[in-house]
Amino acid sequence: MITVIGERINTSRQAIRDAVKRRDAVMIADEAERQMDAGAAIIDVNCGTSLDKELDDMLWLIATIQAKREIPLCLDSPSADVLGEALKSHKGTAIVNSISAEKARYEKLLPLVAGSDCSIVALTMDERGMPKTAEDRFQIAQTITAVCEERGVSKDRLFFDPLVRPVSSEHGQGPEVLKAIRLIGETGLRTVIGLSNISFGLPNRRLLNRTFLAMACAAGLSACIIDPLDSFLMSSLTASAALLGQDEYSMNYIGAFREQRLV
Amino acid sequence: MITVIGERINTSRQAIRDAVKRRDAVMIADEAERQMDAGAAIIDVNCGTSLDKELDDMLWLIATIQAKREIPLCLDSPSADVLGEALKSHKGTAIVNSISAEKARYEKLLPLVAGSDCSIVALTMDERGMPKTAEDRFQIAQTITAVCEERGVSKDRLFFDPLVRPVSSEHGQGPEVLKAIRLIGETGLRTVIGLSNISFGLPNRRLLNRTFLAMACAAGLSACIIDPLDSFLMSSLTASAALLGQDEYSMNYIGAFREQRLV
Repeated sequence: MITVIGERINTSRQAIRDAVKRRDAVMIADEAERQMDAGAAIIDVNCGTSLDKELDDMLWLIATIQAKREIPLCLDSPSADVLGEALKSHKGTAIVNSISAEKARYEKLLPLVAGSDCSIVALTMDERGMPKTAEDRFQIAQTITAVCEERGVSKDRLFFDPLVRPVSSEHGQGPEVLKAIRLIGETGLRTVIGLSNISFGLPNRRLLNRTFLAMACAAGLSACIIDPLDSFLMSSLTASAALLGQDEYSMNYIGAFREQRLV
Repeated sequence: MITVIGERINTSRQAIRDAVKRRDAVMIADEAERQMDAGAAIIDVNCGTSLDKELDDMLWLIATIQAKREIPLCLDSPSADVLGEALKSHKGTAIVNSISAEKARYEKLLPLVAGSDCSIVALTMDERGMPKTAEDRFQIAQTITAVCEERGVSKDRLFFDPLVRPVSSEHGQGPEVLKAIRLIGETGLRTVIGLSNISFGLPNRRLLNRTFLAMACAAGLSACIIDPLDSFLMSSLTASAALLGQDEYSMNYIGAFREQRLV
């Protein structure tokens, strides 16, 4: 089964923004634990909306979530400075989210992560902006791999993100993302998607999300950034693992059924 | 969106077996119309359990379903003789289900279909039995294509069935079927699956069915034999078409949402 990165601790959500503002450690710790209980292996932490308070908020979030036990975090920020500081205070192996093939971005971030053993989300985009085809994404992944290996960051530490686009506005991008997952995966590299963008602007988003997630699993996806409290999504993942021969004797599937977790 | 072949008129279902036995034309016609209303384009008709009465029952079913309008049928029988006679009484363009690469089977059936314009389901199996890998299935599809073209049956008339196996007993066959759909589709040939076999022997079969259907759509599936009254399956198909760029401006998806058909 693929690695689930829980997306709920993001200050773009009003409840999280308020909890961070009032330093509500109980609420934040509970959000993390509930996601872990539901099947997340890693918790994404994003307080990009905090603007000039982002570093303070990020350090508080890390300390709060890791206070009781070393829950691994996906440190999610547009700022290399914030990511560098966050990485220093994180206990255990983090995921840094993200670099891309944009030179300014990787030149700043790679020196900060080269000495650690963290994993890194690598967006398959460059200075030209969003890629259109699967082959564009694959080429950019090759470029990032080369740049990282030159700087002592092994390709095994990378998760390539082929950048899911909303099907409502970018009609033909779904198959390109799926093909990019397959092409990148066939070279032995790992992939990750932030799923929910796929359904932006359309009704019944959960149906589109769970359906695309199954397709991405079949294409060979390694990890996804999702809401693990969405039981439809988690059921789709559990079913996908059984269907794709990743759940021997369907034991995990049958166990989830018995615990009434399949919907 | 892929072609839906409605599977409900099959005498392996007790209610259908009884209706056929008592020649209940109203019930059978209603089963056909409900499937068409739900999105089927073709109605599968299978009375293989009727044994020595199979031909009589098949001819009655065809006449009954096509009495009011020419609903296209998928004539589904293990017997070439039954299929040959069924094809003569069918109005419009039928699908004949099925041939395979077994010589005895295609030698008998191909002469019966060569003069008509029907489509044909071609099972990717041969005298050696069930294929194990995607490549085996692909090779058998190539063999069938050659045999058919030699005998004046164009490859455009074929739907290749890669033979879905139960994930409960044949652990790694899901990815092989998906890859076979992709390999066959990439050569411009059409594919079809009978879906429900995938979930045989496991609980919450509808979850497995709808999840595998989405994966098969993403692999390029052309048609499926399913129960179109299963609203989860039909929602999966509608969502898949939107996600795969086969539903311009998501108009069909949004229409289905407005009609409260998405679950």
